[in-house]
Amino acid sequence: MSHNTFGHLFRVTTWGESHGPAIGCVVDGCPPLIPLTEADIQGFMEKRKPGQSKYTTQRREPDEVKILSGVMIDEDGVQKTTGTPISLMVENTDQRSKDYSEIKDRYRPGHADYTYDAKYGIRDYRGGGRSSARETAMRVAAGAVARKVLPQVTIRAALVQVGPHKINRDNWDWSEVDNNPFFCPDREAAAFWADYLDGIRKAGSSVGAVIEVIAEGVPVGLGAPIYGKLDTELTAGLMSINAVKGVEIGNGFDAAALTGEDNADEMRIGEDGKPLFLSNNSGGILGGISNGDPIVARFAVKPTSSILTERKSVTRQGQEVDVMTKGRHDPCVGIRAVPVGEAMVACVLADHLLRHRGQVG
Amino acid sequence: MSHNTFGHLFRVTTWGESHGPAIGCVVDGCPPLIPLTEADIQGFMEKRKPGQSKYTTQRREPDEVKILSGVMIDEDGVQKTTGTPISLMVENTDQRSKDYSEIKDRYRPGHADYTYDAKYGIRDYRGGGRSSARETAMRVAAGAVARKVLPQVTIRAALVQVGPHKINRDNWDWSEVDNNPFFCPDREAAAFWADYLDGIRKAGSSVGAVIEVIAEGVPVGLGAPIYGKLDTELTAGLMSINAVKGVEIGNGFDAAALTGEDNADEMRIGEDGKPLFLSNNSGGILGGISNGDPIVARFAVKPTSSILTERKSVTRQGQEVDVMTKGRHDPCVGIRAVPVGEAMVACVLADHLLRHRGQVG
Amino acid sequence: MSHNTFGHLFRVTTWGESHGPAIGCVVDGCPPLIPLTEADIQGFMEKRKPGQSKYTTQRREPDEVKILSGVMIDEDGVQKTTGTPISLMVENTDQRSKDYSEIKDRYRPGHADYTYDAKYGIRDYRGGGRSSARETAMRVAAGAVARKVLPQVTIRAALVQVGPHKINRDNWDWSEVDNNPFFCPDREAAAFWADYLDGIRKAGSSVGAVIEVIAEGVPVGLGAPIYGKLDTELTAGLMSINAVKGVEIGNGFDAAALTGEDNADEMRIGEDGKPLFLSNNSGGILGGISNGDPIVARFAVKPTSSILTERKSVTRQGQEVDVMTKGRHDPCVGIRAVPVGEAMVACVLADHLLRHRGQVG
Amino acid sequence: MSHNTFGHLFRVTTWGESHGPAIGCVVDGCPPLIPLTEADIQGFMEKRKPGQSKYTTQRREPDEVKILSGVMIDEDGVQKTTGTPISLMVENTDQRSKDYSEIKDRYRPGHADYTYDAKYGIRDYRGGGRSSARETAMRVAAGAVARKVLPQVTIRAALVQVGPHKINRDNWDWSEVDNNPFFCPDREAAAFWADYLDGIRKAGSSVGAVIEVIAEGVPVGLGAPIYGKLDTELTAGLMSINAVKGVEIGNGFDAAALTGEDNADEMRIGEDGKPLFLSNNSGGILGGISNGDPIVARFAVKPTSSILTERKSVTRQGQEVDVMTKGRHDPCVGIRAVPVGEAMVACVLADHLLRHRGQVG
Repeated sequence: MSHNTFGHLFRVTTWGESHGPAIGCVVDGCPPLIPLTEADIQGFMEKRKPGQSKYTTQRREPDEVKILSGVMIDEDGVQKTTGTPISLMVENTDQRSKDYSEIKDRYRPGHADYTYDAKYGIRDYRGGGRSSARETAMRVAAGAVARKVLPQVTIRAALVQVGPHKINRDNWDWSEVDNNPFFCPDREAAAFWADYLDGIRKAGSSVGAVIEVIAEGVPVGLGAPIYGKLDTELTAGLMSINAVKGVEIGNGFDAAALTGEDNADEMRIGEDGKPLFLSNNSGGILGGISNGDPIVARFAVKPTSSILTERKSVTRQGQEVDVMTKGRHDPCVGIRAVPVGEAMVACVLADHLLRHRGQVG
Repeated sequence: MSHNTFGHLFRVTTWGESHGPAIGCVVDGCPPLIPLTEADIQGFMEKRKPGQSKYTTQRREPDEVKILSGVMIDEDGVQKTTGTPISLMVENTDQRSKDYSEIKDRYRPGHADYTYDAKYGIRDYRGGGRSSARETAMRVAAGAVARKVLPQVTIRAALVQVGPHKINRDNWDWSEVDNNPFFCPDREAAAFWADYLDGIRKAGSSVGAVIEVIAEGVPVGLGAPIYGKLDTELTAGLMSINAVKGVEIGNGFDAAALTGEDNADEMRIGEDGKPLFLSNNSGGILGGISNGDPIVARFAVKPTSSILTERKSVTRQGQEVDVMTKGRHDPCVGIRAVPVGEAMVACVLADHLLRHRGQVG
Repeated sequence: MSHNTFGHLFRVTTWGESHGPAIGCVVDGCPPLIPLTEADIQGFMEKRKPGQSKYTTQRREPDEVKILSGVMIDEDGVQKTTGTPISLMVENTDQRSKDYSEIKDRYRPGHADYTYDAKYGIRDYRGGGRSSARETAMRVAAGAVARKVLPQVTIRAALVQVGPHKINRDNWDWSEVDNNPFFCPDREAAAFWADYLDGIRKAGSSVGAVIEVIAEGVPVGLGAPIYGKLDTELTAGLMSINAVKGVEIGNGFDAAALTGEDNADEMRIGEDGKPLFLSNNSGGILGGISNGDPIVARFAVKPTSSILTERKSVTRQGQEVDVMTKGRHDPCVGIRAVPVGEAMVACVLADHLLRHRGQVG
Repeated sequence: MSHNTFGHLFRVTTWGESHGPAIGCVVDGCPPLIPLTEADIQGFMEKRKPGQSKYTTQRREPDEVKILSGVMIDEDGVQKTTGTPISLMVENTDQRSKDYSEIKDRYRPGHADYTYDAKYGIRDYRGGGRSSARETAMRVAAGAVARKVLPQVTIRAALVQVGPHKINRDNWDWSEVDNNPFFCPDREAAAFWADYLDGIRKAGSSVGAVIEVIAEGVPVGLGAPIYGKLDTELTAGLMSINAVKGVEIGNGFDAAALTGEDNADEMRIGEDGKPLFLSNNSGGILGGISNGDPIVARFAVKPTSSILTERKSVTRQGQEVDVMTKGRHDPCVGIRAVPVGEAMVACVLADHLLRHRGQVG
């Protein structure tokens, strides 16, 4: 990972600010001959798109993705990747930059306003500029391409905690995820969250969340130890998402409290004659290499920093002020992080599939 | 990060297995004219060295580091870096590979035995080969060089949880860290852990741990968003350490449960006229860029997988067996991960200092 | 350099095919606060633009570059770089893809048709697709940004040989370069070439060329030995340009024939008290590091492969055919390679300036 | 390429100075299960080793390479690569650093003394330190490993010009290369060079040379356009060798003088039903991708800068002096560059084989 690019063989470079004319990405190193149309990508864009419910920002963008390069219609009329860089772009249409003029010289607490200004010496006050979560739209677009590289892998994510309220894991039902505006796999929790988040929203407040991503069907052997371990790069991918403060794999922080006997996933020979793990505390990764079990990663998103309550802050000029952010924002940015988490996992897995194939054949 | 190299301008490549003739690393891109001797590195090696107490593996290695290149004695008789690659090497002296012959064909549960074999088609049964924690000795060596690049930064780590037992943060006293074999900043907790871990050791069991690393004096502005964010790369560095299952920055997973009002670190103008944060929930990083506050990272280490209790497993040949690891091992590998965590943070910060200077001047 | 990205701290990623909707690039890692407008870039685009004279392809494109991200208008009304990725795009407007239908299944000799097809399994017959020289437009755009990073450096190139006809170096006059359609610094040679190339063009033939790039004002110390030497990366940058078959630095291949006495550039102390080289056989680089003298690089471009003479070839289906390329093409692609060579040198120098600053401060 | 590492999937990092205790390299990303012993490497080391004849430096080093990691003896008693980093080391035994004390403060003309000092602020006067050609020993070692990755490819190099004297290509006979101390494929030229170089040596002078490397059996499809073209990376690899001033592929600079008709390699269908090129002006690469024909690269080496004739120079302190280098040196460093050129080509091809396999499968 470096600046605005991540991945080694399947490489993604993103660009664009929330209030510029467009945002985009370049997906480089994608294998050729993979059928790919804008529709393949658009479906994932819709999941992340703002303005879907009252629980996410009311900014409305069509988020129509365009493929500008790297594909070609073949003799059978099927549009396929050519192995050359795939350029994707989304135009920004609902920018309302006037909303932000008031905070032009004020650093919003919890935001990257102060650090960007301190680092670069210039302040893009228009909706956070490059630090805006709008950038994650292009991760989702790249992730849609990555999924095409991994047809045998199923990558799904769900919201498992909102504020202090966790789901009941006994209720986990993937089919529920599309039935509520929270990507929640627990119908009861979703109902509870609806009321809870309504209150948060009306109070002009916000809360954090925890997202769990599960990848099934990942072949054994992906990962490039020691510094390109699969868990390392999945963690980095998730940690790079806006507002993420923690990442764990498998049983994660809970592993600290266990004994070796309880934590080790025992093995038997399965009916297919292959090694079988009797539990999955490891989250599908041992020594940085996938073991064939579902890969399980969780990440924590902090509460949206833009809230309607005044907080103490300072200006660029060194004056003490109180800041309240009036723009359109999410009471829980964690919700829209669900498809973004899936996308990052897809990109990392696609990269490691190619890297593994490169070294080991 | 890629294969066995990490960092961009301050780059570290490690090599070597636990039972080969030696292990080593190459530190590339280090600034020139920095005084550096083997003694500067050796002190940190001692902290990580096995056999220090009954709570860590009884394998005994002098772990004497040699500098093979990249330094020169200048006209004043001071040995300094030359800006060329610094090669560091430690000979393996206490290998006892016979200890491992029994598990030659058996996959130890919780270990990387199965996945390395599945990926590479060859099984280095001698103490874990490349997946052994012995590799972390060279991270510590590289970290000692990195600290020299960051003279104004203080990087310290402590064990804050062993098994289910956390320290009392009110007792935190850095000077206690060197007074007990656990790098524990809480004298009372250390005393409790001594008994607790004695029991674990005698039972042939093991437990996990949580380590906290704090870097003070980090200048504002380090980090390379979007994909080279400072927290992303710190997290990746820590996650790449053996047996780590989770990493968090600042208040980490706890942030999920907070409201935006409670989580945002408010700002005032300090006595020096500069912005001042009234709290440090962010762990010193906003938008992937350091904000001048102490950088706080925590990581969870799973319990040592090598235990004296039999666990179900399988052989290379596909037979079901019970495996008990008889070698010399740590009841809590988390202890020795403390200096390793410090080292990874040092390397990442050194790299970002150079990268920041490169882009912004 | 990797796939479609080059550079380490100043990184350029290009995308797009000659007959897609657009081509573009992302310039990442550019220092902030540099004034930058589209007009700064457009001037260089004009130099490379096709259709400027009868000696270059008659394809006509306005080649209007748009800046889509990475800049912002500051309080004084000046548009400046923000330190975030700069996305540049040029729409393709004169594609006439019908011109190419005839060669859909035929591999044009000397072109990359066969190798792209063999590698990727798909044939972008529309004007060469990604292998088209149209890609170099974005190198020129990126080079214009790079020049802004190097205000003290003057980078100029000239055509010094067309077919077998070299310039007379005694006539070298930089001010002539803009007075003829060949970027030729020798007025007499330019006049001769005009007639010569007219004949080549009318015969439906083509010829090769040699371009010389000179960078003056490069500070001492740029370059990252051993594998990131300045000459290595300049050479790679130039070699990556379409149709280039050779690159040399300083006296280049002529150095092979010299003795050590004649080749070594002797040194004296200049009037400013600094070391001074009495000659510049080295081309301004010693041991891979700039020595303060002008950097001199030359590269050879093969004759345009698209010619109006039939050549033996084969089809995708394995049939033997004769191929004549009817499209609009350059009798000497070397001419338009002049601004491209300048751009590559600018990008490499900008990258090394940042890298040097990173390591050495 | 970056600092002291090159390659992407097959990555080589070298370290060490000519007068330190040892030099070495780490080969990372090598596929597993390849039989590899020190003897496999040592044969190539012997070809490059100094002191072989009166035409190369009289410095005598056994250059015994040791494998420190990355291999393991398997069940059949065969030592094989494990897929983990291969660390190779050669101890420096004949350093005689006293030879160099006289030039401690003097910059040797043509050497990197001045630029290294200017860049890093420290002068390793002991035989050139990191800029010494001794570093190339480790390229040869890495190249020997790379050849193992490419069993179907034959990589050979020959000296084709010494000073102004070229071979007669009609006399080319690969079996002659081992019959003379110049790696010369032309028996007559070798005889002539013997006398010629004897005179150069006795005069305390030196001359340059041109080396040609040919790789046969390279599969179609290697290369990663646009910026990872096969010719680009071969050129960079060769240009990074000490004293190289120019590189060309195929007919190289001669292509500039040709017409498109003469330069394009025509194609027919071969007896095996596959496309066949009727000539190889391209040097086996089209559009940056191998076309199946032999890959042909040439590089020019400047004359050894260390000569017994006084040249004008300056000291670190800014005084004008005359410098004569008394150490043991090569009258023609180009000779020993022959195996180094082969090695660089082998490393680049191995890397591209893995990269191609990664992307395209």
